[in-house]
Amino acid sequence: MENFARSNLTIANDFSFWGLNIPRNTGNQVGSNVTLLNVDQIPGVNTLGIPLARIDYAPNGGLNPPTHPRATEILLVLEGTLYVGFVTSNLNRLISKVLNPGDVFVFPLGLIHYQFNIAKANGVAIASLNIQNPGVITIANATLGSNPPINPDVLAKAFQLDKKVVNDPQELS
Amino acid sequence: MENFARSNLTIANDFSFWGLNIPRNTGNQVGSNVTLLNVDQIPGVNTLGIPLARIDYAPNGGLNPPTHPRATEILLVLEGTLYVGFVTSNLNRLISKVLNPGDVFVFPLGLIHYQFNIAKANGVAIASLNIQNPGVITIANATLGSNPPINPDVLAKAFQLDKKVVNDPQELS
Amino acid sequence: MENFARSNLTIANDFSFWGLNIPRNTGNQVGSNVTLLNVDQIPGVNTLGIPLARIDYAPNGGLNPPTHPRATEILLVLEGTLYVGFVTSNLNRLISKVLNPGDVFVFPLGLIHYQFNIAKANGVAIASLNIQNPGVITIANATLGSNPPINPDVLAKAFQLDKKVVNDPQELS
Amino acid sequence: MENFARSNLTIANDFSFWGLNIPRNTGNQVGSNVTLLNVDQIPGVNTLGIPLARIDYAPNGGLNPPTHPRATEILLVLEGTLYVGFVTSNLNRLISKVLNPGDVFVFPLGLIHYQFNIAKANGVAIASLNIQNPGVITIANATLGSNPPINPDVLAKAFQLDKKVVNDPQELS
Amino acid sequence: MENFARSNLTIANDFSFWGLNIPRNTGNQVGSNVTLLNVDQIPGVNTLGIPLARIDYAPNGGLNPPTHPRATEILLVLEGTLYVGFVTSNLNRLISKVLNPGDVFVFPLGLIHYQFNIAKANGVAIASLNIQNPGVITIANATLGSNPPINPDVLAKAFQLDKKVVNDPQELS
Amino acid sequence: MENFARSNLTIANDFSFWGLNIPRNTGNQVGSNVTLLNVDQIPGVNTLGIPLARIDYAPNGGLNPPTHPRATEILLVLEGTLYVGFVTSNLNRLISKVLNPGDVFVFPLGLIHYQFNIAKANGVAIASLNIQNPGVITIANATLGSNPPINPDVLAKAFQLDKKVVNDPQELS
Repeated sequence: MENFARSNLTIANDFSFWGLNIPRNTGNQVGSNVTLLNVDQIPGVNTLGIPLARIDYAPNGGLNPPTHPRATEILLVLEGTLYVGFVTSNLNRLISKVLNPGDVFVFPLGLIHYQFNIAKANGVAIASLNIQNPGVITIANATLGSNPPINPDVLAKAFQLDKKVVNDPQELS
Repeated sequence: MENFARSNLTIANDFSFWGLNIPRNTGNQVGSNVTLLNVDQIPGVNTLGIPLARIDYAPNGGLNPPTHPRATEILLVLEGTLYVGFVTSNLNRLISKVLNPGDVFVFPLGLIHYQFNIAKANGVAIASLNIQNPGVITIANATLGSNPPINPDVLAKAFQLDKKVVNDPQELS
Repeated sequence: MENFARSNLTIANDFSFWGLNIPRNTGNQVGSNVTLLNVDQIPGVNTLGIPLARIDYAPNGGLNPPTHPRATEILLVLEGTLYVGFVTSNLNRLISKVLNPGDVFVFPLGLIHYQFNIAKANGVAIASLNIQNPGVITIANATLGSNPPINPDVLAKAFQLDKKVVNDPQELS
Repeated sequence: MENFARSNLTIANDFSFWGLNIPRNTGNQVGSNVTLLNVDQIPGVNTLGIPLARIDYAPNGGLNPPTHPRATEILLVLEGTLYVGFVTSNLNRLISKVLNPGDVFVFPLGLIHYQFNIAKANGVAIASLNIQNPGVITIANATLGSNPPINPDVLAKAFQLDKKVVNDPQELS
Repeated sequence: MENFARSNLTIANDFSFWGLNIPRNTGNQVGSNVTLLNVDQIPGVNTLGIPLARIDYAPNGGLNPPTHPRATEILLVLEGTLYVGFVTSNLNRLISKVLNPGDVFVFPLGLIHYQFNIAKANGVAIASLNIQNPGVITIANATLGSNPPINPDVLAKAFQLDKKVVNDPQELS
Repeated sequence: MENFARSNLTIANDFSFWGLNIPRNTGNQVGSNVTLLNVDQIPGVNTLGIPLARIDYAPNGGLNPPTHPRATEILLVLEGTLYVGFVTSNLNRLISKVLNPGDVFVFPLGLIHYQFNIAKANGVAIASLNIQNPGVITIANATLGSNPPINPDVLAKAFQLDKKVVNDPQELS
């Protein structure tokens, strides 16, 4: 087989990555794990703007929580049953669907979206994004969990919640 | 003075708008009012991508709540005292400041941000955005108030809140 | 489960596609089959520029022949063993590698590249491209098989081949 | 009030500027003064491409003379009465209007334009531009006042003026 | 020779134009003539953004007068001796040179520039521009010759000229 | 004449190049020679994205062989008779034409194309490209002549040729 691999492997490695078939650990608070391949993992992708991600979901409710990356995302389900959705701008319409393996879903650029595994087994999806460094903004962390915190008067008014909830959200959970 | 206005006014009007000096009504739930001039108000701005907005804030807590438009925004305070901030991606760092008339602040593209009037008088700001149709996504409305609603299991897990709060936020306010 | 699917499915379907887990027929001359999802299959991807493709390879030499789409492509191997490569511009250096399931490879925009399944079983890969309508240009078809044909004097000189080969390539195969 | 300002002010300052409410000196030849905030004044605006400017006009004829920056400009009048206009390409049509406080006008990218204060009091406007470093090209200075000068044969023919005027314009003023 | 032209000529014509080798009439006020090929002449160039122009100059002073198109321009001299230049933004520096056949010169986007034939014979140049519809803004026409005219108070102050010159420039020429 | 050249010539030279009127040597295997002016020859063109090229063709079959640069190209014939064409994506349609001096032809971005001089005299063309560094990919060299070579099993299957031809194409020529 080696006659198929005569090129300079050092350079070929700049354009490749391995092991995206290995399940990731989802034993965390939200029950999901995003493995994002971008220019840090694949130097050859620099300026080419097309990262790929593997997302693992825990059984029974593994959640990739509401985020709004600076990129459009196309998602292919490999395992599990994912309830997914995004919310449109201006009118706040929810567009959602339940996806099974082989199903594909598109999340338009900049809209809040999520995936939620409702299967009793692990979920796995492959996502592709259309910019090189999409950034990650988890809504709950950015609003209720910033450092330093946003003044609670602002959050209470914004979410129409009691200040006690905003100051100490985990007490209620 | 009319010798200064000999052009075709019909066409000139396509490039202009009037009355941005008139205070807007801030008697609503959050106590703010955004007057956005874009291609719908100024046809001549089409494809030129540079809307302008006047924002009015009620005294003692008028809030332009956390949003993430698809645009960078530069804000000039004309009246009031505004506590403003944005949250960075990935690390969720809050960058905030108190602004007085004549102060300018930049909110980078796609980051969650807000302005909160802490003066006892009305607040007024002028904002400029770098794309033609920036869209408006109010975080609280898009997550807790979409139509139809996002499944409460998702929201409760995302915000680490009790499902009762998520289902009926106004009871707590 | 239906409480997870309350949105307008007609609209959700504009953002989705199903059945990308179903093997495609590779019983053709080159032994491969590309299923490209773009704006024709997923209307919601319009202007969002991020098609996805499933590629099936026959065992023992299924070939996705040298092409140069107007897009960068990132490929994830799900099954099979793929000998892949691309040729740089100017110096014509071949950058190639043998990939196994879970391996990822990036083909930069506009460079001639190929994948060749050297496993005894079927091969399957998922590819993502960074523009909406990348186009397909198979080198051999575009040069030796255009309609009408390129004048054989041009082809013979370009490929440094006998005119007889150029005129009737299948006789030699 | 300090509980509203807990963030790292050093960083917040990178995104802010103060004093745009302070009148500028208009005691110069044309009677106007442009205070442009761009990446040099607000480091945080870097790559975000949205400078803001304050323009002061002297009473009775303060002029921001014909220029053609590499940007679209949207202008909001705060004080004074401005006779403004731009000239279209190809047909050289003048599109002009008289603006009062609260009026907004858009000058499309690359077209020659001006503002002229016809009020007996000072004029003030806020302008926003859609690129980071728009550059300033004052027509009269770039043609009649370059360094070294453009050959007077060229200027005389271009403006259909006597060479004496071109060589020594101030004698006539 | 016809075996070289078997394609659908109707379509091929969408990508071609003829007769750019034919001299154009330069018997006009400035002594030059620009033949611009853009999407109107070559439908196939649509969205491809690369017009080409032939410029003819009269002997002894044919002038392509100061203009600032929305495009970068690269010029190749075929005949004549051209004194060319452009003026930088901000500092108004003139960058000029005398060009002979075979010489090439680049005029950066948006800067005022000109070509002036100082040979005793006709001049011819080929220019290529990097956007599809660059527009033409002749400085003198756009300022002194707009329709309706810019108010003479503005022009006199801008150019530091007597109002009489501005009102009736041809009297002095 | 020197009063036309008073500017800083060091800087003017950054925007210019000379000698594009001098015939180039076409005594090579394909009988053509491309002189490409880009940022390496004209520093001032940096980021302005508009290279220019002179192409010389030998009499009786000088060939600029099938290539696919990352740019749209517009070609003006100065001398010779050129049989030119490009092949569309997807359907592999050949669009070709015979060009004479003064004729112009557009080759859309990324499509395989060629020019072939069928005159008994030298051919000369000027080509303009719409990106700064278009790259050169000669199809035959990139497929049959890469370094290291593409595995012959791939090439034989791709071109439907005998492996002996692929391994040693020059024996047949």
